[in-house]
Amino acid sequence: MEKGKDKVGTFHFVTESYLLDFRGRISIPVIGTYLLHAASIHAAERGFGFNDMNDRHTTWVLSRLAIEMDSYPGISEQITLYTWVEEVTRLFTHRCFALAGGDGKTFGYARSIWAAIDVETRRPAPLDIEGLSAYIADRPCPIEKPGKIAPVENRTAGEPYRVRYSDLDINGHLNSIKYMEHLLDLFDLELVRQKDIHRFEIAYLAEGRYGMPLTLHAEETSPGTYTMAICHEERAICRAAVTWR
Amino acid sequence: MEKGKDKVGTFHFVTESYLLDFRGRISIPVIGTYLLHAASIHAAERGFGFNDMNDRHTTWVLSRLAIEMDSYPGISEQITLYTWVEEVTRLFTHRCFALAGGDGKTFGYARSIWAAIDVETRRPAPLDIEGLSAYIADRPCPIEKPGKIAPVENRTAGEPYRVRYSDLDINGHLNSIKYMEHLLDLFDLELVRQKDIHRFEIAYLAEGRYGMPLTLHAEETSPGTYTMAICHEERAICRAAVTWR
Repeated sequence: MEKGKDKVGTFHFVTESYLLDFRGRISIPVIGTYLLHAASIHAAERGFGFNDMNDRHTTWVLSRLAIEMDSYPGISEQITLYTWVEEVTRLFTHRCFALAGGDGKTFGYARSIWAAIDVETRRPAPLDIEGLSAYIADRPCPIEKPGKIAPVENRTAGEPYRVRYSDLDINGHLNSIKYMEHLLDLFDLELVRQKDIHRFEIAYLAEGRYGMPLTLHAEETSPGTYTMAICHEERAICRAAVTWR
Repeated sequence: MEKGKDKVGTFHFVTESYLLDFRGRISIPVIGTYLLHAASIHAAERGFGFNDMNDRHTTWVLSRLAIEMDSYPGISEQITLYTWVEEVTRLFTHRCFALAGGDGKTFGYARSIWAAIDVETRRPAPLDIEGLSAYIADRPCPIEKPGKIAPVENRTAGEPYRVRYSDLDINGHLNSIKYMEHLLDLFDLELVRQKDIHRFEIAYLAEGRYGMPLTLHAEETSPGTYTMAICHEERAICRAAVTWR
């Protein structure tokens, strides 16, 4: 391995008051930013970060993400986040995460699937399987892999939304974290107050662009589990599944 | 001083791709989160952080903020952020910031004014002037102080907005950073593409609550300078002034 880096990356965070939600805990979108932060630095330090990909006219896109939490960090809690590559295929890398507390307890785990795309054509680009595989770590991630999410495009909930400047990422598309925020905003605040998200899973299907009118959809498909979608012109640009308990 | 801490706090950031806007630079709201991060830790390390205030049944609220940028950090840039207390009065502390680059150049400065409020009554609480004054640093902050912003409530721009879950902070109110995002979303994307915000100033006047319907207002009051407001039932909950160049 280049640079003598460990396969598993370790990152430290302390939750801060201004990032907590109204229940005084970190939210799924904030956990998402922690995961992106760790993934981004872990990859860059091993020679396959955003800048390295850009040199090859490619960029990483997050394809699927599942976060499963047993408990949530509150205010001023120390979090140790571990991240590692579990598998590399021709078009996807599977990256795992574990979120631990200062006392060694585990808050939860996450799994993500990333693709490389050509920056011009926006088409999938084959990965350097051999190079990336040097970083595969044999560490368990005891949560279910992200899978297929049923369509719920026929159910409408929430007000339509139009993609704004603050939604845009460096590629000029709806930012991965903003999809999460818009989806979670569909839930009734009483539900958010009384229950916890045990599992949040999202599949990114197409890129949201500035000014694009979006519709937001949700259906309780089994008790406590909601299947969701964000659509543009009746086609899903993302699907999600959220289990509360 | 307790804990032998320097009066000026020094914080290091590296800009990351997933936090950049579509121009590949950090945005005013992201700079805002850096400032809140530094303010929060600087205060906590000196015994007047969120938790210390909470022990006294008070909390800090950001009253005014001005950010003035000469240039913006791009991707993978190192930022050193300095913060210090400039002045303490009976009801307000004035906190300053300087944002410097890895090579010592200055990106910009910021000034903030904070009040303490009682967590129950939401009324201003007097500050411990003597205790806080021990941390006053005599360091220049060469930008104009935040001042009075003219009302523009009669001008409407943008779609009305209703406060959502993702907008809420730990106090259950519209988060300071989200006000910025909603205001900047009013600007035409062409303006954002072609010009830079030289100065962004905001005055927080009242707390936005969940479900509250808001109207957003903007007027170009002199060439390149926009006076803005967010209102609830025709009363401004915040005013802002943005100068582009």
